[in-house]
Amino acid sequence: MSDLFVFVNNKLVPANDAKISVTDLAIQRGYGIFDFLVVVNGRPVYLEDHLNRFYHSAAAMHLPVPLDRPALVEAIQQLMNKNKLPNAGIRITLTGGDSPDGYSIGVPNIIITQNPFQYSLSSPLKGIRLITQEHQRQLPHIKTIDYAKAIFLQPTIKAAGADDVLYHTAGIITECPRSNFFIVNNQQEIITPDKQILAGVTRAKILLNTQFLVKEAPINFETLANAKEAFVTSSTKNVLPVVSIDGKPVGNGEPGPVTQELLNWMIQQKGILSTNL
Amino acid sequence: MSDLFVFVNNKLVPANDAKISVTDLAIQRGYGIFDFLVVVNGRPVYLEDHLNRFYHSAAAMHLPVPLDRPALVEAIQQLMNKNKLPNAGIRITLTGGDSPDGYSIGVPNIIITQNPFQYSLSSPLKGIRLITQEHQRQLPHIKTIDYAKAIFLQPTIKAAGADDVLYHTAGIITECPRSNFFIVNNQQEIITPDKQILAGVTRAKILLNTQFLVKEAPINFETLANAKEAFVTSSTKNVLPVVSIDGKPVGNGEPGPVTQELLNWMIQQKGILSTNL
Repeated sequence: MSDLFVFVNNKLVPANDAKISVTDLAIQRGYGIFDFLVVVNGRPVYLEDHLNRFYHSAAAMHLPVPLDRPALVEAIQQLMNKNKLPNAGIRITLTGGDSPDGYSIGVPNIIITQNPFQYSLSSPLKGIRLITQEHQRQLPHIKTIDYAKAIFLQPTIKAAGADDVLYHTAGIITECPRSNFFIVNNQQEIITPDKQILAGVTRAKILLNTQFLVKEAPINFETLANAKEAFVTSSTKNVLPVVSIDGKPVGNGEPGPVTQELLNWMIQQKGILSTNL
Repeated sequence: MSDLFVFVNNKLVPANDAKISVTDLAIQRGYGIFDFLVVVNGRPVYLEDHLNRFYHSAAAMHLPVPLDRPALVEAIQQLMNKNKLPNAGIRITLTGGDSPDGYSIGVPNIIITQNPFQYSLSSPLKGIRLITQEHQRQLPHIKTIDYAKAIFLQPTIKAAGADDVLYHTAGIITECPRSNFFIVNNQQEIITPDKQILAGVTRAKILLNTQFLVKEAPINFETLANAKEAFVTSSTKNVLPVVSIDGKPVGNGEPGPVTQELLNWMIQQKGILSTNL
């Protein structure tokens, strides 16, 4: 175990002592939400966006948050001061709480963990391989703790020689378990699925890019097959090229120039280019 | 908190001390399985069936069980001896374990809890009201801890004046979150959905009934509308009449005679009629 500290319900405790009751609804019923953000040189990246989504997820799941927003920011700061990890990932988890009957929502536990994380962008850019899988995440707009299907699929992904899975619902592409999906078409347009997906923070930033035409629209398997480039986005992955899907190369099977440009732009936006690489 | 004991990873501990690390995959990713059985007058009901399903769920989710079957039975017995609760519910939970990276399966935690539970069968029989909801449980054949959608829907169920939700997928009825569903048609046939459902232990026993023709077949909304009776089954509910669905009465809106007969038969099968009521 690490010698880092964890924030649990208003207290900083050593990671070894960071425990919650087995009667919590997270353990009993997989019920909880979270958010995750990256800290670069002591600066939380897009903190406001992540807090917005965290409180939105909590409200959507009927979970009262024990800390108001200033208190939560203060808790994150306390944890950062204690752990002295200038480059890290921070996860804020809110559970269903100890349930009197194993089914009703109790008083949620709030848990903030911090772990070392450093962006490492390889040059030349390395891409990932995806396999597609029919699956619609339940409650897709809420950042719940539910990754049952994604983790269940890990052996399938490995057996296919792939890195991750790309979900679709009746042939309409949605997202990866921990990242949003984009393609670049023949007209240099960037397209990302518009429905039944998580509102990724990095995805929202990509939609603000003005160098390319970026739009939200359905992506079917035909659009996918004709894509010149593909990539995924997330807080840790930034803009990560997808080089093959179901064993077939995307475009020429190499990370593409639009993806590379967007990555450069994104890491500038996040302020990680000059400080961290 | 109760003064009962809980079995956690080979130790009996007071419920207040029964905790697991916040890095467990159950808390981080909603990843785990469980099973639940009832103890009547010190006798676990259908223990073998529940253990079969528990080990099946674990294997299906790629989770190694830290205890082999004799050791698990011994653990349950130890817990029962300690808590001295002759009438109880016993829950065996297996989590994804402490994950090194927050995503890969670790060494699972096994948790066995026992809580007081006594069958209370009202006479005359009281029924429940359901509302339907389009939803397909992910990994339906595995008894995972995932009840996110079911608990998320609680306010909707309450607002509709109902007691529980009945899932369907594209108009084909599947199950309730914690029970299997049956109807009785005009020909006195008993029908239960055949696909994409959990293999309930009580459901399997009902299928063995020879007094009625019981069959597994798809149930659509038309079949539902024409049903003379409906009921749900589970380890705690035995055979529980459904008197309305989406505000419309099932049959004459009262618990029906076939349901009552099956309940009588079921509690005899379970050996709870003479000992506990």
